[in-house]
Amino acid sequence: MVARLSAADPNFAKTFADLLATKREVSEDVDHVVAGILADVRKRGDEALIDYSHRFDRVDLSILGIRVTPEEIAAAKTECDPEALAALSLARDRIEAHHAKQLPRDERYVDLIGVELGSRWTPLDSVGLYVPGGTAAYPSSVLMNAVPAKVAGVKRLAMVVPQPEGKLAPLVLAAAELAGVDEVFRVGGAQAVGALAYGTETIAPVAKIVGPGNAYVAAAKRRVFGTVGIDMIAGPSEVLVIADGTANPDWIAADLLAQAEHDASAQSILITDDPDLADAVEQAVERQLSTLPRKDIAAASWRDYGAIVVVKDIAAAVPLSDQVAPEHLEIITADPEPLVAAIRHAGAIFIGGHTPEAIGDYVGGSNHVLPTARTARFASGLGVLDFVKRTSILRCGPEQLRAIGPAAIALGRAEGLEAHARSVAIRMNPGG
Amino acid sequence: MVARLSAADPNFAKTFADLLATKREVSEDVDHVVAGILADVRKRGDEALIDYSHRFDRVDLSILGIRVTPEEIAAAKTECDPEALAALSLARDRIEAHHAKQLPRDERYVDLIGVELGSRWTPLDSVGLYVPGGTAAYPSSVLMNAVPAKVAGVKRLAMVVPQPEGKLAPLVLAAAELAGVDEVFRVGGAQAVGALAYGTETIAPVAKIVGPGNAYVAAAKRRVFGTVGIDMIAGPSEVLVIADGTANPDWIAADLLAQAEHDASAQSILITDDPDLADAVEQAVERQLSTLPRKDIAAASWRDYGAIVVVKDIAAAVPLSDQVAPEHLEIITADPEPLVAAIRHAGAIFIGGHTPEAIGDYVGGSNHVLPTARTARFASGLGVLDFVKRTSILRCGPEQLRAIGPAAIALGRAEGLEAHARSVAIRMNPGG
Repeated sequence: MVARLSAADPNFAKTFADLLATKREVSEDVDHVVAGILADVRKRGDEALIDYSHRFDRVDLSILGIRVTPEEIAAAKTECDPEALAALSLARDRIEAHHAKQLPRDERYVDLIGVELGSRWTPLDSVGLYVPGGTAAYPSSVLMNAVPAKVAGVKRLAMVVPQPEGKLAPLVLAAAELAGVDEVFRVGGAQAVGALAYGTETIAPVAKIVGPGNAYVAAAKRRVFGTVGIDMIAGPSEVLVIADGTANPDWIAADLLAQAEHDASAQSILITDDPDLADAVEQAVERQLSTLPRKDIAAASWRDYGAIVVVKDIAAAVPLSDQVAPEHLEIITADPEPLVAAIRHAGAIFIGGHTPEAIGDYVGGSNHVLPTARTARFASGLGVLDFVKRTSILRCGPEQLRAIGPAAIALGRAEGLEAHARSVAIRMNPGG
Repeated sequence: MVARLSAADPNFAKTFADLLATKREVSEDVDHVVAGILADVRKRGDEALIDYSHRFDRVDLSILGIRVTPEEIAAAKTECDPEALAALSLARDRIEAHHAKQLPRDERYVDLIGVELGSRWTPLDSVGLYVPGGTAAYPSSVLMNAVPAKVAGVKRLAMVVPQPEGKLAPLVLAAAELAGVDEVFRVGGAQAVGALAYGTETIAPVAKIVGPGNAYVAAAKRRVFGTVGIDMIAGPSEVLVIADGTANPDWIAADLLAQAEHDASAQSILITDDPDLADAVEQAVERQLSTLPRKDIAAASWRDYGAIVVVKDIAAAVPLSDQVAPEHLEIITADPEPLVAAIRHAGAIFIGGHTPEAIGDYVGGSNHVLPTARTARFASGLGVLDFVKRTSILRCGPEQLRAIGPAAIALGRAEGLEAHARSVAIRMNPGG
């Protein structure tokens, strides 16, 4: 039975806080192993990649080659279901159109005293995209990571994907081609992260590495951070549904289960002001669970981390949701917009009964790489801004320097940085 | 003597690459110590802060109190040089005006098939600002970190600053007040980072921690990343000057030394097409060095990491500069704008002879927290975007779901996520 909480319960605040504080993922301590792999890749390059792929993925890259060939990608496309290919293509177009609106504008202006200031955005030269192998190789994730980089103007996009037992998912390769990925390499794990960060004979180094991975990949990304940029480290995923009596319980149950089927550490929470809806959703979840292919995973997630919270008034759901800072928030009520406006922390908000979260996973156009595990308190979903950087621009003439230079001199001296002060003063001295 | 490189030298590419690859900072391995301190602060809260402050800063916080009082701040202001206070106030106003232009705009639009999409920006609830103690306690850094957070709309800004031997810099406290810092605590080191991340009896936890610190602070920030957001980890600082024969060698020398005085691991590089300017700058550096209060530090930096590179044509400076991806780039040439336009990687660009980098450190208005150690290849300077996060918004009606739902169903099935597919399909079935 799923946890049922009532906001009227005198212990509610603590029970709810405990629900959020429950650690949903055991973090493996793999840092020591990863440090060794990274150092080895840095030293031995391709040779190390071949060794680790042999050991971990049971493939011989000295025969297959480290880089996936254009012929293999073309062949993979012919293996794909045409309907899935068409769906990927629609998804790509919608993601591209939405992300194009995120391109930041350069700015250059002159202020009241004549100082020119500016912000100029430029794309990263190169980006590495990590794609997990096996069942977690999601073609939609390839699009969600690669398309924003290409929209940003990144010229070189290198993808790494392990090929365990010699198999690469055809639809993943097709997605890479659709998204404009420039190079694909059949390596994974910490060794692939090392190759992207330091470079090998075959793989040129990149400026930033994005994409999800297991504990080894996450630890490797943390370690190479600084040498290259990295995206956020993804944690277990969650959905929170705010719904009132007007919502369809079967639809809500389906959404809670779509989240729960991801993995056993996913979390699905319903907050409602209607105890009857709470009951109906709970029953619908049980009914729908029984026929799901991934019912064991979904059932474990729902049993261990799922929750239904009943509040007195639907507005009371807002502060509770902000406490969760959910990756995905669905608002399915008679009048959702005031609730949407009041929410402060969420990765993405899905409004109304006809916007299941799965639409956002695939074809909505917005990104499905979103801040997990309460990090929406301080982080955003992936977007074009993750693939560009800003350069500040400053230009003074003699008059402007005379106006603000003395303050710079005073602060330089106050901080004990005399050479700073002198670098300004020397230009204000007519004999300088 | 400083390194002199000529781009005409057949070994130049390697020599230049070696110059950049030189590790300028020894990274201390303090991670194990830091892990212990963080765990202790998490467990014992204020008591741990009092113990570590006693041990590391030789102050008794059980008497002084952990929080700096409004009375202390008021008293500190009376100790400050009025000229320095006025300069700080000018700096604050200019930083505020420039950063106000960085506020991102919300967007909500309806696409061609009627899907509503949006991006909404909200400020972080709370931010912790780390300020180093001792000689590295720079009031200008307080402004550069705090003002953008306040411009972003952060309601609670908590500053931590160690008080070694009982001393707090009055101008640092004055800067905190000017910048609108809400709470100041006299703790530093890994323990202060732990307090901001996990909270103690006196210090409420924050959503993100920013600000520079020593190796312990950097290691602590890396460790708490995920629980809270962090800014980039700052490395040793650098300036690169591109100048032609029209530039004043004394001014350039002053700028190279302003960078070099920061610390012995700072790096100052001049690239010029004029060998006479190269000679004149080298001589001016030696001349100016002799009278600098921090001449030992500046001389060590210039000797160990400084360089003068002579190129045949000033345009050849651009790819070399991009290879450095300098934190600060000065362009002092007869016609700087084409060079500015061609540059791809730099934290900030200072244009023309009357824009010494020190203006940007204090009163230009742009931020002086910039990507160091080649990270301008993928990172931006600190700004308002570091204190806000984006929520995606998606809304479909029945018609839109009919249009794009089938593609979501196809992709869900292709990825083996049947519950995803069903959460869409159930809404397309008239009986659902």
